[in-house]
Amino acid sequence: MEYYNYFYESVMKNGNEHGSVVPITVFVAVLCLCLIIGHLLEENRWVNESITAIFIGCLSGIIILLVSNWRSSHILRFDEELFFIYLLPPIIFNAGFQVKKKQFFHNFLTILLFGVVGVFISSVIITAGSWWLFPRFGFGGLTPRDYLAIGTIFSSTDTVCTLQVLHQDETPLLYSLVFGEGVVNDATTVVLFNAVQKLDVNRLDALAAAHVFGDFLYLFATSTILGVGAGLLTSYVLKGLYFGKHSSVREIALMMLMPYLSYMLAELLHLSGILSVFFCGIVMSHYAWHNITESSRITTKHVLAAMSFIAETFIFLYVGMDALDIEKWKMSKLRFGTSLGICSTLMLLICLGRAAFVFPLSAFSNYMNRNAGTSSSTITFKHQVVIWWAGLMRGAVSIALAFKQFTFSGVTSDPINATMVTITIIIVLFSTIVFGMLTKPLIKCLLPRHPHDSILHREPTCPKEDLTLPLLSYDESTATNIARAKESFSMLIESPVYTIHHYWRKFDDCYMRPIFGGPRSDRS
Amino acid sequence: MEYYNYFYESVMKNGNEHGSVVPITVFVAVLCLCLIIGHLLEENRWVNESITAIFIGCLSGIIILLVSNWRSSHILRFDEELFFIYLLPPIIFNAGFQVKKKQFFHNFLTILLFGVVGVFISSVIITAGSWWLFPRFGFGGLTPRDYLAIGTIFSSTDTVCTLQVLHQDETPLLYSLVFGEGVVNDATTVVLFNAVQKLDVNRLDALAAAHVFGDFLYLFATSTILGVGAGLLTSYVLKGLYFGKHSSVREIALMMLMPYLSYMLAELLHLSGILSVFFCGIVMSHYAWHNITESSRITTKHVLAAMSFIAETFIFLYVGMDALDIEKWKMSKLRFGTSLGICSTLMLLICLGRAAFVFPLSAFSNYMNRNAGTSSSTITFKHQVVIWWAGLMRGAVSIALAFKQFTFSGVTSDPINATMVTITIIIVLFSTIVFGMLTKPLIKCLLPRHPHDSILHREPTCPKEDLTLPLLSYDESTATNIARAKESFSMLIESPVYTIHHYWRKFDDCYMRPIFGGPRSDRS
Repeated sequence: MEYYNYFYESVMKNGNEHGSVVPITVFVAVLCLCLIIGHLLEENRWVNESITAIFIGCLSGIIILLVSNWRSSHILRFDEELFFIYLLPPIIFNAGFQVKKKQFFHNFLTILLFGVVGVFISSVIITAGSWWLFPRFGFGGLTPRDYLAIGTIFSSTDTVCTLQVLHQDETPLLYSLVFGEGVVNDATTVVLFNAVQKLDVNRLDALAAAHVFGDFLYLFATSTILGVGAGLLTSYVLKGLYFGKHSSVREIALMMLMPYLSYMLAELLHLSGILSVFFCGIVMSHYAWHNITESSRITTKHVLAAMSFIAETFIFLYVGMDALDIEKWKMSKLRFGTSLGICSTLMLLICLGRAAFVFPLSAFSNYMNRNAGTSSSTITFKHQVVIWWAGLMRGAVSIALAFKQFTFSGVTSDPINATMVTITIIIVLFSTIVFGMLTKPLIKCLLPRHPHDSILHREPTCPKEDLTLPLLSYDESTATNIARAKESFSMLIESPVYTIHHYWRKFDDCYMRPIFGGPRSDRS
Repeated sequence: MEYYNYFYESVMKNGNEHGSVVPITVFVAVLCLCLIIGHLLEENRWVNESITAIFIGCLSGIIILLVSNWRSSHILRFDEELFFIYLLPPIIFNAGFQVKKKQFFHNFLTILLFGVVGVFISSVIITAGSWWLFPRFGFGGLTPRDYLAIGTIFSSTDTVCTLQVLHQDETPLLYSLVFGEGVVNDATTVVLFNAVQKLDVNRLDALAAAHVFGDFLYLFATSTILGVGAGLLTSYVLKGLYFGKHSSVREIALMMLMPYLSYMLAELLHLSGILSVFFCGIVMSHYAWHNITESSRITTKHVLAAMSFIAETFIFLYVGMDALDIEKWKMSKLRFGTSLGICSTLMLLICLGRAAFVFPLSAFSNYMNRNAGTSSSTITFKHQVVIWWAGLMRGAVSIALAFKQFTFSGVTSDPINATMVTITIIIVLFSTIVFGMLTKPLIKCLLPRHPHDSILHREPTCPKEDLTLPLLSYDESTATNIARAKESFSMLIESPVYTIHHYWRKFDDCYMRPIFGGPRSDRS
């Protein structure tokens, strides 16, 4: 992490050997201010965390601009490394750690549909649309690879704002879909972006597309395995050594460091750190959580939430500050009209690209669920609109990827690249502020706080028959087992999710929990 | 923080855009290993955390040496910035936050004597001794400023190891003295070091010495005020806004960020960040602690301990790795005999310099306490030996200061400077390992676990008379107040510490706690 401190010389007169003291001090001070103002605005119906942070960032940017005599509005240069190595891992690990596993896995297929297939559809539409429309505004000079990158950059969603409005207890299905999609979307976007970077753009055909998809599947599988492995190892070590005996300090340190290690290992091996750390979080909250002392549990849970919160605020604060980067504005030689045209086109493509997968895929998911007899998972039209809306905001991942594609560690001298960076920032600002402000009213209108249709509240009903896992019942005759196996198999066809879940519970109770920790579930 | 990753090219074949992925991954992995091995060796009578970390660091260094074909043993270059900006603040804040305030302030004068006057005495002896003896070994070329720096560098103690052996409940006086001295010593050393940097070495006279001392007093006062101010502000904000209403996340974030802000502000203003953050910690544990929710309290306490623990382990791990830095070894052109002579001389001077203040100052403190009638605070001879021993280890601060004095952000090409850095590392290694290993047996021998002389156990007895603070009793006649004032004044002469403490409690209850938070003390 290298801080380039323009601001420095103008403020410090007597010289300071630590070049990063000034930016860190300013950033920490503004962060504290953000926390306090965000708290005061908590009850406000328009504003949320992200918007507060962006506005405070802008304000600080203006002050710094004035102090530095219109030289620069930001005191630390954006660095994808800072973002991908320090800020993103705590956010994603926290997401995995706090996610309601049952809901998440119950809707796993729908989430995957939205998060993976959706990103592919959306990025194809945005790439094609911008390829076709940008030259018509007189904005050319982008390579095919750039267009592909634009497609992925603007397919990454930022659901922070929506999740602050949705309530896990009131609309569990909707919450789990939006949250789950957000996480899988992050991972997919980053993976797809990296795949596009490696793509040979001169030979774009079905084979290349299949190659990208194959790459994606490979990355998804290996990253998941790495994350689950790291989580299981941590759980095993924590259970086996019982750290609480001496002090809870080591437990907490290990609970923080091991997921981070899984993230870094994944990055080192060119896998997806996001997926690894997410699954590591899920596994650790399932097993490791039960192997530590009570105070370590409270600490881990809260400190992860706090770290994730600080990282998110930091990012939006930075986006706000960077919006006033006059150097990039000057460098981009576009007329105002053209910029406006490009931005509106991109916003339109984003809305379109998202609509193009949310509604069809929801219908598909509803059809599948109706066949499987789990009608409680039906996504109503109002829900579809909320899901569509929830993913229109663009956030930190878009910015980070844009910097990665169009700058060389935060610096660019090419006007076209500078334009793309400023356009990304404008779209992130616009979508976060305008769409973000409308989110609370919209959701209030679509989903009244205490809806009378209790379907939304009802937990999905689970088939109550006593399923027994044939392979695990040692003490019964083979004939019974075979009969049971047949029965179970026909049930698997009928309602796959519940059956898989049931078998998983059995397996978990018999083999996993005794080794990796956690209480046996109450069901006999 | 800049990582220079030599190791990088030899390991990575297909190129990785993030230059710091490899060192971070290796460091986090080795840290986790350290945690686990440290836990397994907890019951061992010779080894402690620091020694484990140093050995594992050496081992990793050897492995890295082999992997990198004898090119370098460390994968990230030591940077004082990394140390002073990221690792030291959590350690010191945690110290202030967890210190038993009553004991600390009860022995405040003695602690100041050891921590301030002691450092001055010790650094004078080491400077004079090395100035006189180094040329006799044929090792010249150091400037007067270097000798002064050597004096301060080797006056900084590292009491981590001793504190792991002493028990707060068994020997409260001793624990509080060793702990308190450690913190004040850190601050004094850094301040003195900075004062020496600014000193005009051509005019070294009594005036210059007085100037250094004046500087020190100024820094001590302003840094303390800044830290106390930051702590009070945090407490006030936390009490006034009641963050727990919405979520504990903001509370925790603010409890972490505000002390850090006070540290960075102090550094920005060229004050002592260590002192600021230490007093900020004390004030926050006294007030802010009571204004947050229960879960935030548990989280703050444990996560601070964990962060401090990780930072300490990280430092010793690094020291272990750096010990094998063959480049510096090659660069230092000294014969083995000379190096050995210089190291032994320095070790001797360290022992001497510490003895020269611990025993006289203890006697002085005993004399003062006997006069004040608080004989329970008497420091027995055995205790004096333990205090002397406790401060013989040299640690991270020494290393950081040596790098600051003798390298330019971790790099040096001068043989003499390289020699001084390697000698500092040798002394830190030697004192930590050899003295560290002997600490547990020594303390076991001097202070048996369940001593029969109950004086060590007894809490210092406090004069039980009902003191009333004259200025704060509004509802009584002036005559009574004046009589009380006289009585109180004579008491102040007789036993100053208790009287001050009593008045402080009154003031605290009447004015401070209602504003900044915390329960009223039980005494009426």
